[in-house]
Amino acid sequence: MPENYIQLRDGRIVRSEAPLNLEMPFETVESFITPTKSFYVRTHFPIPKIDRDAWWLHVEGEVEKPFALNYEELLKLESLTVPVTLECAGNNRHFLEPKVKGVQWELGAVGTAEWTGVPLSVLLHRAVVRPNAREVVFEGVDHGMLDDPKSPPGELSYSRSIPLEKAQRDVLLAYRMNGNDVPPEHGFPVRAIVPGWYAMASVKWLQRIIVTDRPFAGYYQTLDYAYWKRREDTAELSPVTELQVKAEIAKPSQNETVPANSTMRIHGAAWASDAEIARVEVSTDGGSTWKEATLLGESKANAWRFWEFNWKTPTAPGKQTLVARATDSRGQTQPAHRDPDRGTYVINHLLPIEVTVGP
Amino acid sequence: MPENYIQLRDGRIVRSEAPLNLEMPFETVESFITPTKSFYVRTHFPIPKIDRDAWWLHVEGEVEKPFALNYEELLKLESLTVPVTLECAGNNRHFLEPKVKGVQWELGAVGTAEWTGVPLSVLLHRAVVRPNAREVVFEGVDHGMLDDPKSPPGELSYSRSIPLEKAQRDVLLAYRMNGNDVPPEHGFPVRAIVPGWYAMASVKWLQRIIVTDRPFAGYYQTLDYAYWKRREDTAELSPVTELQVKAEIAKPSQNETVPANSTMRIHGAAWASDAEIARVEVSTDGGSTWKEATLLGESKANAWRFWEFNWKTPTAPGKQTLVARATDSRGQTQPAHRDPDRGTYVINHLLPIEVTVGP
Repeated sequence: MPENYIQLRDGRIVRSEAPLNLEMPFETVESFITPTKSFYVRTHFPIPKIDRDAWWLHVEGEVEKPFALNYEELLKLESLTVPVTLECAGNNRHFLEPKVKGVQWELGAVGTAEWTGVPLSVLLHRAVVRPNAREVVFEGVDHGMLDDPKSPPGELSYSRSIPLEKAQRDVLLAYRMNGNDVPPEHGFPVRAIVPGWYAMASVKWLQRIIVTDRPFAGYYQTLDYAYWKRREDTAELSPVTELQVKAEIAKPSQNETVPANSTMRIHGAAWASDAEIARVEVSTDGGSTWKEATLLGESKANAWRFWEFNWKTPTAPGKQTLVARATDSRGQTQPAHRDPDRGTYVINHLLPIEVTVGP
Repeated sequence: MPENYIQLRDGRIVRSEAPLNLEMPFETVESFITPTKSFYVRTHFPIPKIDRDAWWLHVEGEVEKPFALNYEELLKLESLTVPVTLECAGNNRHFLEPKVKGVQWELGAVGTAEWTGVPLSVLLHRAVVRPNAREVVFEGVDHGMLDDPKSPPGELSYSRSIPLEKAQRDVLLAYRMNGNDVPPEHGFPVRAIVPGWYAMASVKWLQRIIVTDRPFAGYYQTLDYAYWKRREDTAELSPVTELQVKAEIAKPSQNETVPANSTMRIHGAAWASDAEIARVEVSTDGGSTWKEATLLGESKANAWRFWEFNWKTPTAPGKQTLVARATDSRGQTQPAHRDPDRGTYVINHLLPIEVTVGP
């Protein structure tokens, strides 16, 4: 087997088998909605086998009326269908220097699906949230032992929290992905969809919604999916939360050869959190000069936006460095360099693509 | 050098030179007040050299009137002198099975000194704490780089927080230890003394007191000096806080030979947090049967209490297992076995001492 052998499954790169982690080669992105079988997969434990008819979703904690409901009851409630872009908090980790531990995602731990489900606010309203409530914890059915010596001993379920305000605003409890049942690897029967946040918050195989009166300090927002927020002489461990503005180039791809003296279409996608993509700029000289790309389609909240740029390639053969840079409607733009305080997550600095201009 | 060579300094075991960590051999404990030169030393970074005349203590954050004061001003304020027992959160770690990382403290990372200083409440009153305040962070002058790959990049100062309520109740800013200036290794010129808490909260070389409106998540209460508090399927990372009730046997010491058929004095100390020692029991048969020890002296809040027990040693030579067990006035007692969720800290389960009854 050659050293650079890549195992594919449904066109996705197998980053690991157990737990199952699959990446979409970003150069294959074509449609605004990512087909389910092309959508990246990130799991932490074995994929639970859940009998939909025996499944219950519990709503509990700092609520006046805790309750549980089953799948049939959930489907009878009012629902919404929205496109949401999910990006893994470790997307682009492969490009960090020096190399760090973790799944070596390149550009494709991101995708956009149409999610159909019940607004979480409906269930919170029914449970009657107490005035002292501050956060909402999502707990998945997936569980196992961790081999991190700093991890909790014994079995652990995957769980993650969001602020109550976010939970009441736009979170969905999704039972359909692109019009069909959410598949097992994406959280069957129900996945929480937290728009505008890195996807570690969109907990799969949801079994419990716990309202709390203080910040939740579970493993997946302290020792994992967290980073150091620096303040003068000290630093605080902070959960990874909102997506950071980013553009990625789909084509041409890394090390591709493009024809000299012709018009080459550079295209890709850009996304932000709770803001529109205001502008994507492209540099074909490694970031010295920038030109504005054309935004395609229409802007949709918390979904990526495609863009393109027609590049007049040089007449002389040689190497060229392409870079894309997104800016959102709040004026936030991608940093030129990596902030080391972010550790192994939240990677949105500018990433160059090297291409060869052929004869 | 023999394998079990122990380097001593002022009678203390050198656990490490850089950073300096010294342990008092617990069998040498004799007086209620531990002499300063026998007192255990725990440091994380090089000991700062501080010019008292150039030192300032800042009080800031969620206060109406932030201010700084110097050493001379601090000494003019009202002061208290109180005995307080300080115990390292990793005391007894040597006895954990399986072995864990960290300083291998046996019984002597504990001591009692008379601390003289200004109640923190006086300074907080002067600063006028805002209604939204929740915690108080102590920041030391000591700083450096950590080699934990999960630690914040760059230089870090040692800092630790306590709840506002505790800060206003009984915390001292101590400038004297046992009647003299606090020595450099114990925090010169000023050390925060947090009675009833493990000593990681009693920040040395204090330079900044920061009032915050939310829980502080610094390195020394998340990745270090923290443990997992389990709740059903999940666990939360929780800072180490209050001392747990404990009795330690000073004499006889581990593997000591005691005479058969005689009266042997077993003695030691016991301590708790915010409670009196109600009872110390001693077992000379490995925990099968217990008899009550005599408490010595008078009870003082947040200071240890000495105890003794006169043991009629067996007539026949052999091995005996001694155990001491303390119970506090709130009814809390030492657990028989280690709770693995506590990780590498807060070790207060029963620790047997093996002795040989000689002819």
